[in-house]
Amino acid sequence: MEDMLSKQMEFLIEIDKLKQVERRTKIMSGDRLENDAEHTWHLAMMALILQGHANADVDLLKVIRMLLVHDLVEIDAGDTFAYDTKGNVDKHERELSAAKRIFGLLPEEQAAELMELWLEFEHKESQEAKFASALDRLQPLIHNHNNNGDTWQKYGISSSQVLNRNREIADASDKLWDYAQQLVRKSVDQGILKES
Amino acid sequence: MEDMLSKQMEFLIEIDKLKQVERRTKIMSGDRLENDAEHTWHLAMMALILQGHANADVDLLKVIRMLLVHDLVEIDAGDTFAYDTKGNVDKHERELSAAKRIFGLLPEEQAAELMELWLEFEHKESQEAKFASALDRLQPLIHNHNNNGDTWQKYGISSSQVLNRNREIADASDKLWDYAQQLVRKSVDQGILKES
Repeated sequence: MEDMLSKQMEFLIEIDKLKQVERRTKIMSGDRLENDAEHTWHLAMMALILQGHANADVDLLKVIRMLLVHDLVEIDAGDTFAYDTKGNVDKHERELSAAKRIFGLLPEEQAAELMELWLEFEHKESQEAKFASALDRLQPLIHNHNNNGDTWQKYGISSSQVLNRNREIADASDKLWDYAQQLVRKSVDQGILKES
Repeated sequence: MEDMLSKQMEFLIEIDKLKQVERRTKIMSGDRLENDAEHTWHLAMMALILQGHANADVDLLKVIRMLLVHDLVEIDAGDTFAYDTKGNVDKHERELSAAKRIFGLLPEEQAAELMELWLEFEHKESQEAKFASALDRLQPLIHNHNNNGDTWQKYGISSSQVLNRNREIADASDKLWDYAQQLVRKSVDQGILKES
C-alpha cells in the first residue's frame, strides 16, 4: 500500500510537466499560447456540457477519463502540429514510447488501465473515443475563430485544410459538425481564414 | 436546440478566462504561478489515480464533475489565498454572485446542475465533496514540498498553519492525511517550512 501510494505520487508529480507543454493555439482570453494541461481541462468541460449532442449515447466518465490522459504522452513527445505532415509520420511511435514511460510510473494495474484508455482514444473506434476526439478537434477551431484566426494566419492554413482536419467531428456528432462548418464559413467571411 | 448550443458555446468561451486566474502556488516543473485551469486538470487526475484511498466509496464521475467546475467562480471572484483571513470573510458571498452569473450563461437545466454541484462541493458534506476538497488541499501541499516551500517562505506560513488548513483531508482519507502529515514533517526537517 505504501509502495502503491509512492508510485502514484511519483506519477502525479511527473505529469505536472504537462503544464509546460505549449500548443500552437493561443488562449482566447489573452495573448499567449495555451498549454496542454489547461487545454485538457477545457476539453473535459466541453464533454460535460456538450455530451447531449453526441450522435450515440456515450459513457461520460469514460470520455472524461480518456480526455484527461490523452495528451500526457506529449510530456516526452511534444505537441505535434496538426498541419505538420512530416511530424505526423512518426507521431504514434514517439507517443507510444512516451506512454510506456509515463504510465509505467504507476502501479501495474493503473499503468495498464491508462495505456488502454490512451490506445482506445488513439484508435478512434469506440463511440467514446470518437466523441473525445471530436472535442479535441473542435476546441482549437473555436479558439482560432475567437482570436482572429491566429494559428491560421501564422501558418497560412486554408479553409479546406481546416475542413479536412475536422471532418471526423461528423463521426461523433452531426450537430457539432454543423457548428464547426458554420465557424469555418464565418471565419472566411470575416477574412481571418483564407478560402481554398 | 440551436439556442441551446449557442448558450453552451457562450459558456465554454467565457470559462476560457479560468486560464488567466493565477493562484499563489507555483507549478512544480517551472518558475511561474499555476493558473486555475491547469490546477483543476491536476486535481481531476488526482481523483482518477487516488480514488482507491478514499475512506468511503465515492462516485468518481461526481468527484470529477465537481472538481472541473469548483474554481469557475474565481473568474469573477479571484483566487482567495488560503491564509488570507480577511479575504475569506466575504468569500462565499462573492463566489455565489459569480456562480449565478457564470453558470447562468448555460441553458436553465445545466445552469441548475452546475450550481448544485458547486454548492455540494462548498458544503463538504457528501463523501464526494469531502474527497474532492481533500485533493484540493493536498495538491498545493505537494507543490510546495516540491518547490522549496515557495508559498510558505513568501508568506511566512508555519507548520501548524499548514496542518490546521489541511486537517480536513482526514475526513476523506486516513491514508492521504498520513501522507500529508509526512510531507509537513519532511518539509520542516528540510528547512523549507518553519516549525510552530
